[in-house]
Order: sequence, then C-alpha cells, then structure tokens
Amino acid sequence: MSTDTAATTPLAERSPEELQAYLEEQREAYAALCERGLTLDLTRGKPSSAQLDLSDRLLSLPDGITDADGVDVRNYGGLTGLRELREMFAELLWVDPDQLVAGGSSSLTMMHDVLVQHLLHGGLDSPRPWKDEEKVTFVCPVPGYDRHFTMLASYGIEMVSVPMLADGPDVAAVEAIVRDDPSVKGMWVVPTYANPAGSVVTQEVASRLASMPAAASDFRIFWDNAYALHHLTADEAKSADILSLASAAGHPHRPIMFASTSKITYAGAGVAFLAASRENIAAYLGHQQFASIGPDKVNHLRHIQFFGSAQGVRDHMARHREILAPKFAAVDAALTAELDGLGIAEWTRPAGGYFVSLDVPDGCAARVVALAKAAGIALTPAGASFPHGQDPRDRNIRLAPSFPQLAEVETAMAGVATCVALAAAEQLTAVG
Amino acid sequence: MSTDTAATTPLAERSPEELQAYLEEQREAYAALCERGLTLDLTRGKPSSAQLDLSDRLLSLPDGITDADGVDVRNYGGLTGLRELREMFAELLWVDPDQLVAGGSSSLTMMHDVLVQHLLHGGLDSPRPWKDEEKVTFVCPVPGYDRHFTMLASYGIEMVSVPMLADGPDVAAVEAIVRDDPSVKGMWVVPTYANPAGSVVTQEVASRLASMPAAASDFRIFWDNAYALHHLTADEAKSADILSLASAAGHPHRPIMFASTSKITYAGAGVAFLAASRENIAAYLGHQQFASIGPDKVNHLRHIQFFGSAQGVRDHMARHREILAPKFAAVDAALTAELDGLGIAEWTRPAGGYFVSLDVPDGCAARVVALAKAAGIALTPAGASFPHGQDPRDRNIRLAPSFPQLAEVETAMAGVATCVALAAAEQLTAVG
Repeated sequence: MSTDTAATTPLAERSPEELQAYLEEQREAYAALCERGLTLDLTRGKPSSAQLDLSDRLLSLPDGITDADGVDVRNYGGLTGLRELREMFAELLWVDPDQLVAGGSSSLTMMHDVLVQHLLHGGLDSPRPWKDEEKVTFVCPVPGYDRHFTMLASYGIEMVSVPMLADGPDVAAVEAIVRDDPSVKGMWVVPTYANPAGSVVTQEVASRLASMPAAASDFRIFWDNAYALHHLTADEAKSADILSLASAAGHPHRPIMFASTSKITYAGAGVAFLAASRENIAAYLGHQQFASIGPDKVNHLRHIQFFGSAQGVRDHMARHREILAPKFAAVDAALTAELDGLGIAEWTRPAGGYFVSLDVPDGCAARVVALAKAAGIALTPAGASFPHGQDPRDRNIRLAPSFPQLAEVETAMAGVATCVALAAAEQLTAVG
Repeated sequence: MSTDTAATTPLAERSPEELQAYLEEQREAYAALCERGLTLDLTRGKPSSAQLDLSDRLLSLPDGITDADGVDVRNYGGLTGLRELREMFAELLWVDPDQLVAGGSSSLTMMHDVLVQHLLHGGLDSPRPWKDEEKVTFVCPVPGYDRHFTMLASYGIEMVSVPMLADGPDVAAVEAIVRDDPSVKGMWVVPTYANPAGSVVTQEVASRLASMPAAASDFRIFWDNAYALHHLTADEAKSADILSLASAAGHPHRPIMFASTSKITYAGAGVAFLAASRENIAAYLGHQQFASIGPDKVNHLRHIQFFGSAQGVRDHMARHREILAPKFAAVDAALTAELDGLGIAEWTRPAGGYFVSLDVPDGCAARVVALAKAAGIALTPAGASFPHGQDPRDRNIRLAPSFPQLAEVETAMAGVATCVALAAAEQLTAVG
C-alpha cells in the first residue's frame, strides 16, 4: 500500500497498527503546530478590515442634510426611515417599500424588539400576550445562529431543535411540531446562506413553511435574511419570497423578515431593516413609537448617497466577494488536503454567507476546539450553534474565515485540520 | 381710569361692561390674527436648523477609523460604548466612567429598554418581574414629558400624579405615596430644566427622593437628565448628584440616569447615555447583550472628535444658548405685553431647557389651543403634559419656542397671547 493511498483510506478501515501510526503522525504534527506559537481567531463572523475599507467613503458622507423629500435628516422624526433607502432595499429584498422599515444599526435589536412586543403585547392575531402563556416554544433549526438561541433562552422560551438540511429546515419535522403544539409560537429561519451551514431555503420549503397549519394562530417565522446579498460565487441564490408566499397561503402575518447592512457597509454602524405584512408593520410601529422618535436618518442618507441605487449595493457586494471567496477556498483546500477521504470530517462549501460548518466524529468537537485553543487557534466553542450551547452529538464546529487575513486563514485551517485528525485518531485508538 | 391702568386691572376686578368691552377688543384682535393666514408651529421641543448647523462638522467626521484604544470603530462589539466618550460625558454628568454606558442615538430607547427589562426580568432587587405584579404604579410629576407617560400607558402601568414645583416634584406627596404602596415601582424625574416647567430639582429634594423609605424594594427613579447642559442664562444649574445621594442613603440601585446629545448635536443622530450603580449597569448590560452586539461606535468617535473634551461640549452649549435665549425672551415679552397684570395667565421664565409652561384660567387651555389652531398657530394639545393627556384643570399649555425662527416666535406668541385673552374673556362673560 503506497503512502498516497494510505492517506485516503478511511480511518475506520485501517488496522490497529496503521491507526496507531497515524495517531503518532498527528501527535507530531500537533506538537509542531503548538511550537509555532500562533495567535489566530476564527470565532466570529466579522468583516475584515479590508472589507470595511470598501465603505470608507461613508466617513465623509452625507453631502448635505436633506433627503430627496426635503427632510432635514438631522432632526427628530420619521419612524419608518427614509423613503429612498426603503425603496432601495425593498428592491433588493423583493418586498414593497411600504412593507419595509429602515431602523437603527442592528437587526438583532429589531428581532429583540419584535420578540418583546409579542411577549408584552402579543401579536395582532394573538389570543393574549405571550408572557401570559403557560409556555412559549420556538422551533430552532440546528446548527443555527447562537444569538438567536441565547435571546430566547434569556426569556425562558423553550427551544425544539430540527435539523437544518441543504434545502432549509427539515420541513416535515417542523410541520409536525407546529401543527400539534399550540405553545409553538415561532421559529427561526436564516433563509439564505444560513449560519453556519450555508443552506439556502428552497422555494418549495419556504412554501411549506408559509402554508403549514399551525396550532397557534399567532405563529411567527423570524426570517433573518442576514446574508441575502452575500454571494461567494456567480451562482447567486435568490431568497424565497416568504411574505408573498405566506400571504397567498392565508397566513400574511406569519413571517417577519430582518436584514441589515452590517456585513455590507459597517458591522457596527450600518442600517437594519424589518419587512412584514402592512398590518404587522403598523403593529410594530404602533409599539415602537413609545420607544423611539425615529432612527438615525443621517446614517440613512449616508447609505443612500454611498450606494446610489440597488445596483450600487450589488456592485459593492461583488467587491466583498473578491475578498471573501479566496478565504472560503482556503478553508476547503486545507480541510481537503488533510482530511479528504478519511471519513472523519464533513464540511460545507457554501455559495455565500460567512461560515463553514464542520462536522467531526460524534463526541470529538469539544476536543478539537480544545486542541486548537491550546495551539493558539481560537474557534467558536463547540455546541455554540445549538440551543443552550449543547450539541447533542458534540460534532459540529462553526468556522468563520472572514475576519483574518487570507494567509492567516490558510495557517489556521491547516492547524484545525491537524486537530481534527488528532482528535479522530485519539478516539479511534482509545481503549474501551 | 386711564386706558393704561385698565390694561393692567385684573379681569376679575372689572365690571361686566368693562369685561364686555374687553371681550369685543379681543374678538377684533383675534379676527385680525386669523386674517393673517399664519402657519406657525410651537408644538415640539426640536432644535432649529440654526442649532443643528452648529454641529455640521460631524458630517465629515470621523477622521480615521480607530479610537484612542485602537478599536476599529467600524466593526462589531463594545456594548458599553467608547471609553473616551464615556469619560467625556461622565465628567459632564458627574458620574464615574464605569457607571456610564454610551449607547445608540436615543435615550428614550434606553429608558424603554430599562422599563422592559424590569417588566420581563425584574431589577436586581425585585422579588419578581414587574409583569408578574398585580399592579405596577409610577409617580408622575405634572406637568411632565408626554412621552414618559405614553410609554407607561402602553404597558398598562398606573400613573399617580404629583405636582412639579419650582424645586422639583412635591416631595412630601411623593414620600407619602412611595412609603405606603408596594405597587409603586418607579417615578419619572426630569431633574434639570424640567419639561415643561423648567424646574430644577434642588439638592434637598433630590436628597429626600434618594433616601425616602419605599414600600417596594425595587423602587426606581428614572432620572431623565435630558437638559443637563442646556442653560439659557449664565446662572448654570448644577444637577443634583443623584447616584451619590442614593448610594449614601443606602439605595444605590434606585436611580437610573439618562441623558443624550440629541439637543447638543443632532436630534436624530446623537448619542444617548445611561448611568447607574455598577450593579445596575451590569444587570442592564447582562440583558442588553441579547439585543445588541454594540452601539454605533463610528458615531461615538465622530462625537469624540467633534467635541474634543468636556469643555468642548460646554463651549458648544454656549452657542446653542445664543440662539435659544432670544426666543425664550420673545415668549416672555409677548405674554407680558398682552397679559401681565390681568390675572388670567402665569408662565415660567426658565433658566434652561426647551419649554415654557403656560397656565391659563381653569377650563380654558383646550379653548386656547383650539383658537390658536384656527388662527394657524399649532400648539401642543392641551393636557399633553399629563398622564393620559388629561389635565384635570384644563389650564396648562406647553410652549416650545426652539424650532421656529425668532420672528416666527414673536408673531406666534403675540397670537397665543390674544387667544389666551379671548378665551379668558369668553369665560368671564359667559352666562351661567
């Protein structure tokens, strides 16, 4: 058996002696890794400096102080946000401008506001405020976005996991849960290039989510379209038109869509958006008026002038892609070089978004993260993509290659691959 | 009796014939007013364009993308806000920087966040979340800020009014309510140049509010220091140091202070602040972390560079004063010219803030507002400064002279004075 062939024989098919030799190899490789004294970070889906630089013309905008309607953007008012900005992003998100609110800098805050409104007031079709329900449950596709889950946990909302598949949440599983349990008031969906697996919800899955019977009259889909425009290839996914689908299915108030420019312009100083049925928008603003006199319209005007048009946003995203795509290619290359064919790792090759989802053998994820940490490579804690941070199979690791430089991604991912190989070899050679 | 004397004889001391003649005069004056076809607006406490212009250097800031600590302000993170900005405003608000959070653009939003946290989680000294209390009551000094009251009303929180006096809330009345009723969980105080009466809470009143026994262990003072630096005269009021007073009195978690640059830089695009005990700050951030990854730090850096220092803020406020003080003088001059000595109106001559509080004869405020509206002068609805918009005596009108030009203030206020005179004369001559 040549060395080349050995390298691609699945570990599970190797003899104890071969495995022991592989383990020793990986121990040596890991020791060498540790000696390099790396300090690298693949933890969070943050844009890199080079990406942020793309938007630095914002720093000296806006020119002037009024928008196209003559509004002095410096003063109070205008809870729905500037019209031009809403029109620009309505086109990009496939909604009507009057179904879209442009808010502050954080879509997470808008999600929280909507959740709080439902807790304290209920939705427009709620029998009572959710705080007065004996139990509130959300369906959580996993792996998913940790901040979605921690927000729910902070309010004691129960979470029921369903698998996130390549075409979206396991819709049969969702249907069964939602149909029978009136405590199920909502679900999270990241429809486009989902965090972390990169899945894109298909039209068919979206249609079933929009139309499925729900025991709760006020069942909500929190449709977090955070990566709607964040393509990594020329094959640009189109997000399903959930508002129209839900409306056509007789559940117009079910979906509430969120988006932002956090990963288009500045992560801390972009503009967030909320889209929903006109009635939901009215309800949202009806509550929001007690909490705000209006969003930062200067920042709205800044963004209007920076982009110029919806096409300007698309062109801008192409420049992000030029920076990001090589980093994602580096992740794939490093994992492929070290792990392909060994049967110990599967990972996504996303066509967009900010993450790669890496599955290692059951029971190995926490070990991989610990090994990486000891070698100076920070990874998101194992389990972070699951409710309460608990991955029942301890196998999923979220990789975020956007923030480090390309060379750092290459170095870090080669190290991660070594950690995976070592952890898998340890497990396969463990006595008992 | 000369005409001059007649003009300053209280209406109540005049004969029926004299009153009838006065009524006719005012009717003629009002008819002439209506013929002018005015369109003037004294409704809201908005900065004028000239005031906003003072901050227009913000439009081309920040220079650079990092703060003094090397933080890239464009990216995610930093829930407490930039250190330099917190230090600058800590000095101005007489708090420690580590007791101060610099947030988004709206202090109203921060107030709402704190209220919602207490409703859904309770405070750190609450026996249970406020949502689980049978009743929650707030003490509301009146006249006060309408948005404070509508926020409470939106959550069904009961409001008990106490008079706002020249030295602050009627503290004996507050003490009696707070001592005996465990449902009383909080109160609003605008300590400096209060909306609308311009009162300044004295050190003595603040001390009693800080130390008074409360039936509720988690009684909160929402200390909205919106006008802390907004002086109209050289006699600059110092806000009482409520955090220290409360701490010394053994109630460190009682006050939560709010402030913002909404009326310092841009009303829609400033920076808001929250100050409280370290434990309260930790509790606030502990909840807030689920709703936000951090505030707009680019706007923080913009403000740091614009002001330069705390003294830069004070210097900037002096320029606001130059614009605002003549408008407030015009309000006083117009009311004095028409109404002084007639015994039908009292108004404040505030040393700061954004409002003049005008009291007309009981039962006349709504009539005055209606007359003004018909003459093209928009005033805040009568009763707006009271819970549920109900002034039990229908006598208070809030005047907001900041937004119109000086000449417009003069014209509008002469008109308002005519409306007051007419309404009072109508009432005094009414049969029955």
